[in-house]
Amino acid sequence: MAQVESSTAQNYGAVAAVVGTPVVSGLAYGPVIRVSGVPEYDVDAAAEIPETERAAEAARFVAAAETVAERFTARARANTGSTAEVLAATAALAKDRAWIATATGLIEKGTPAAAATVRAIDTISDMFAKLGGLMAERVTDLADIRNRVVAEVLGLPEPGIPLPEQPSVLLADDLAPADTAGLDPKLVVALATRLGGPSSHTAIIARQLGIPCVVAVADLNRVDTGAMVFVDGERGVVGVDPDAEQIAAAVEAAQQLAAEVAQWRGPGRTADGHAVAILGNVADGVSARSAADLGILAGVGLFRTELAFLERPDEPSVAQQQSLYREVIDAFDGDKVVIRTLDAGSDKPLRFVNHPHEDNPAMGVRGNRIVATHPEIREHQLDAIAAAADGAGAVPWVMAPMVATVAEAREFAAQVRERGLTPGVMIEVPSAAVQAEKILAEVDFVSIGTNDLTQYTMAADRMSAELAALTDPWQPAVLALVERVGAAGRAADKPVGVCGEAAADPLLACVLVGLGVSSLSCAPAAAAPVGRKLATVTLDQCAAAAQAAVAADSPVDGRAAARAVLG
Amino acid sequence: MAQVESSTAQNYGAVAAVVGTPVVSGLAYGPVIRVSGVPEYDVDAAAEIPETERAAEAARFVAAAETVAERFTARARANTGSTAEVLAATAALAKDRAWIATATGLIEKGTPAAAATVRAIDTISDMFAKLGGLMAERVTDLADIRNRVVAEVLGLPEPGIPLPEQPSVLLADDLAPADTAGLDPKLVVALATRLGGPSSHTAIIARQLGIPCVVAVADLNRVDTGAMVFVDGERGVVGVDPDAEQIAAAVEAAQQLAAEVAQWRGPGRTADGHAVAILGNVADGVSARSAADLGILAGVGLFRTELAFLERPDEPSVAQQQSLYREVIDAFDGDKVVIRTLDAGSDKPLRFVNHPHEDNPAMGVRGNRIVATHPEIREHQLDAIAAAADGAGAVPWVMAPMVATVAEAREFAAQVRERGLTPGVMIEVPSAAVQAEKILAEVDFVSIGTNDLTQYTMAADRMSAELAALTDPWQPAVLALVERVGAAGRAADKPVGVCGEAAADPLLACVLVGLGVSSLSCAPAAAAPVGRKLATVTLDQCAAAAQAAVAADSPVDGRAAARAVLG
Repeated sequence: MAQVESSTAQNYGAVAAVVGTPVVSGLAYGPVIRVSGVPEYDVDAAAEIPETERAAEAARFVAAAETVAERFTARARANTGSTAEVLAATAALAKDRAWIATATGLIEKGTPAAAATVRAIDTISDMFAKLGGLMAERVTDLADIRNRVVAEVLGLPEPGIPLPEQPSVLLADDLAPADTAGLDPKLVVALATRLGGPSSHTAIIARQLGIPCVVAVADLNRVDTGAMVFVDGERGVVGVDPDAEQIAAAVEAAQQLAAEVAQWRGPGRTADGHAVAILGNVADGVSARSAADLGILAGVGLFRTELAFLERPDEPSVAQQQSLYREVIDAFDGDKVVIRTLDAGSDKPLRFVNHPHEDNPAMGVRGNRIVATHPEIREHQLDAIAAAADGAGAVPWVMAPMVATVAEAREFAAQVRERGLTPGVMIEVPSAAVQAEKILAEVDFVSIGTNDLTQYTMAADRMSAELAALTDPWQPAVLALVERVGAAGRAADKPVGVCGEAAADPLLACVLVGLGVSSLSCAPAAAAPVGRKLATVTLDQCAAAAQAAVAADSPVDGRAAARAVLG
Repeated sequence: MAQVESSTAQNYGAVAAVVGTPVVSGLAYGPVIRVSGVPEYDVDAAAEIPETERAAEAARFVAAAETVAERFTARARANTGSTAEVLAATAALAKDRAWIATATGLIEKGTPAAAATVRAIDTISDMFAKLGGLMAERVTDLADIRNRVVAEVLGLPEPGIPLPEQPSVLLADDLAPADTAGLDPKLVVALATRLGGPSSHTAIIARQLGIPCVVAVADLNRVDTGAMVFVDGERGVVGVDPDAEQIAAAVEAAQQLAAEVAQWRGPGRTADGHAVAILGNVADGVSARSAADLGILAGVGLFRTELAFLERPDEPSVAQQQSLYREVIDAFDGDKVVIRTLDAGSDKPLRFVNHPHEDNPAMGVRGNRIVATHPEIREHQLDAIAAAADGAGAVPWVMAPMVATVAEAREFAAQVRERGLTPGVMIEVPSAAVQAEKILAEVDFVSIGTNDLTQYTMAADRMSAELAALTDPWQPAVLALVERVGAAGRAADKPVGVCGEAAADPLLACVLVGLGVSSLSCAPAAAAPVGRKLATVTLDQCAAAAQAAVAADSPVDGRAAARAVLG
């Protein structure tokens, strides 16, 4: 294991430490737990099932697969947003007739249920592997389903995260949505993963739960399960066997600081009084009301409308949409609400649209591009937003995702203005950042989606665990594009927001403000740390940190340079 | 059908015309032919095969599948480069055990061979469709295999392009590599497709064959098969039923112009004497010698080295690589040769590397990124290049693909310099264009790969037929990034080349020169039109056209503005 590299780690008297990319700040301490292993099962050693027992074995298998599918469905129901979507998709995969039939066929020839499960799933996975192009996520999901069904037919506990008896630190290669759906932040006090980047699923979940998190820790497997460790989510350190007294004091101090941070009440402004709107990302009325209840947000910077459309057999009616949108507008009565029109496509399929197969769905017909073949979806959505705005406390702003050209911005703006609404676009395609001046001439505001902007600018899939170092919003090239958009916004005197995960990183939030960003929208739980940090620095410090981060050669250098300026 | 929109079309007396994106200039005339249809076969009407004949039917099926696979293999052997790779991959798919076994199983239960073929392929395709994420190309390939095997078992002619008896114009939705592998430019004198973009397979093939080509013609299906049409590859027009005398005169004039263009002998320079190196893209010794034989190229601007690595069970030895590289260096004895290190990954898999599954392989572990897990591949390749350079007429330049960060450029440059070679990098990831100044501080030259730079900048898959309008290198945002790289090159006094398809478009080539590009590397067949065009304009005209194209709102406006300046 790497020797202690960080003075922080030394301070706590740790005997060793490993480092990665910090994504959610905070300090926590506890014994290491890991996602519990796959049931051990030797497929080749399985004895043939006598002919008379095969029908019963097949029924047992079908029941196990159904149980597993139902658990996924139940977890999907207990969740919202993209977590719910992914879990529902996995449930559908667990019930997929193709593999169920293959496995049942094998059982009918004498293969035991567990072995049939392994073989049926492996056959499908192998075939995809051979043909190439399969979504990695789906292969992971298939393996997950296989492990759960095997455990079920063998009468073993369901694989996954153990339910710890004391507050613990969860380490893993990477966490799947199914793993994290039921995480209790009182029992899992910190996360660290070997893979994944700042916009990985793990990072998003940790931010929602408000627990410290470090990702891309290359040497994480050298930390033993059961070892006492601390996770420093500010500096990206996992330290082993720290001095118990020292770490307890440090955790207490960190908790005190967190409590102070939690006292932050807004409004967002720098120490020298430069106003920066701190907004929340929401997905529906429920999440909007819970965000509004925090009492610290100046409004909604990103209302994702996909929830109204996904997992439906048909397009929601204008009246149905109107009522959903009105719920969110009403939750922030009179405050700014920025609604993003539907961002779906072959990566997030709509059941009522026949999406083409695509080699690279992230660079395919998604977001705004679906308008080319389905203009009515956007027309209806804008009608519904206009109807929801009628008589509401504030007129919502409306922005389109995945805009790449001036013409797309112009066409969208005309449709929005026709309905008396305020048009904007997401800046998440590099071309839109490069053309920011021309696009700002067409619309009234822009909002930078740093997650997608980063993946396209770096040509690195944001979900790729291997490329986590590239998909870091601290990449100087990404910040240089943000700088370009910020300058265009100032020149046009129009607002420039950020609504990606970058806005949830307190240090980076200050850098973004220094680059000319006028509002920050993040997961509501991340708002207080961002607002509190901003209140401790001046606009000049933000600008100096921004220049240093853009001029840096790498995210690591940029973070260090920004921290040197911002403290 | 659209009324005649172009004065060109009116001049030839056409009764109607459809328009699209021009990709290869020239004028040709002939009757319309289309890719011949899928055999008509009613799966549900198929009678059951008697039990005694099933073994024979299965054998007949296996033989048919083998015949089809062998035809693909033969075409792969008759071709080189990426065409050969794709055909070989399709041959492998045709022989794939999974579907052969499924079909054979059906036949053994009484299904006739043709129906079993359809059902087995459809089952696989459907399953992928349902699970999502499958490469569209592979689904197309599966359908292609299905149609060919069905035709074979039914004793029908193989589906595909008819062999015309007179010079004809081929229209299609889009052309697959299997379709175009055997195209004879004497019999197929022009291409037009409904889908596809400037860097689609169709465009690349047309450029290689030197025949006029128009893509993305939305109304192409309104042109009847057998109708007499002309294709104007300069203006993007397909005109129906022109006046026979007028068009014959125009085609003759175009051929005369083409003959004059063919007289161009270099060296590359503008009318006022500004030197621009015109280089060729090659893939091996054979293509290098044939490029050198043209006698007009100043060297090789892009030597793609993938051919030495793909379709091999193991890594080629240093000695094997050395001899391949030396062949290319010797073909251009003493002239500049720019070698690109291996650009492979999950999109172009190596058999000796275990590539991860990726949702979006174009934004995955490809090109330079394979070094993270397999550093030895690049070390060996650089050793082989250094050995090949020893005693050769010129020391080759070496560049890495898919470089995204300053650190990657620095690390590569150090390895190349250690071996006494000249290091450069491809600029094809937007971040590299944005960071051009910093990257040029690390290396001695850069070469812009416009195909990939365009797809990432626009976040639009270059192979997507639906997004052809976005993946146009005339997109002003792409040209703005080229401008940034050109300015960085001038500031550092280091060469900036272009080696994408953009360099093969004579008008765009002039714009690129105006943006500060110092060399152009294209398919050798495209070099003379580019060199000839450049010789007719001044550097000031190029710069004015470049400014107009960058300032334009769209590719259409940019082309028109550039043409107004450049004639």
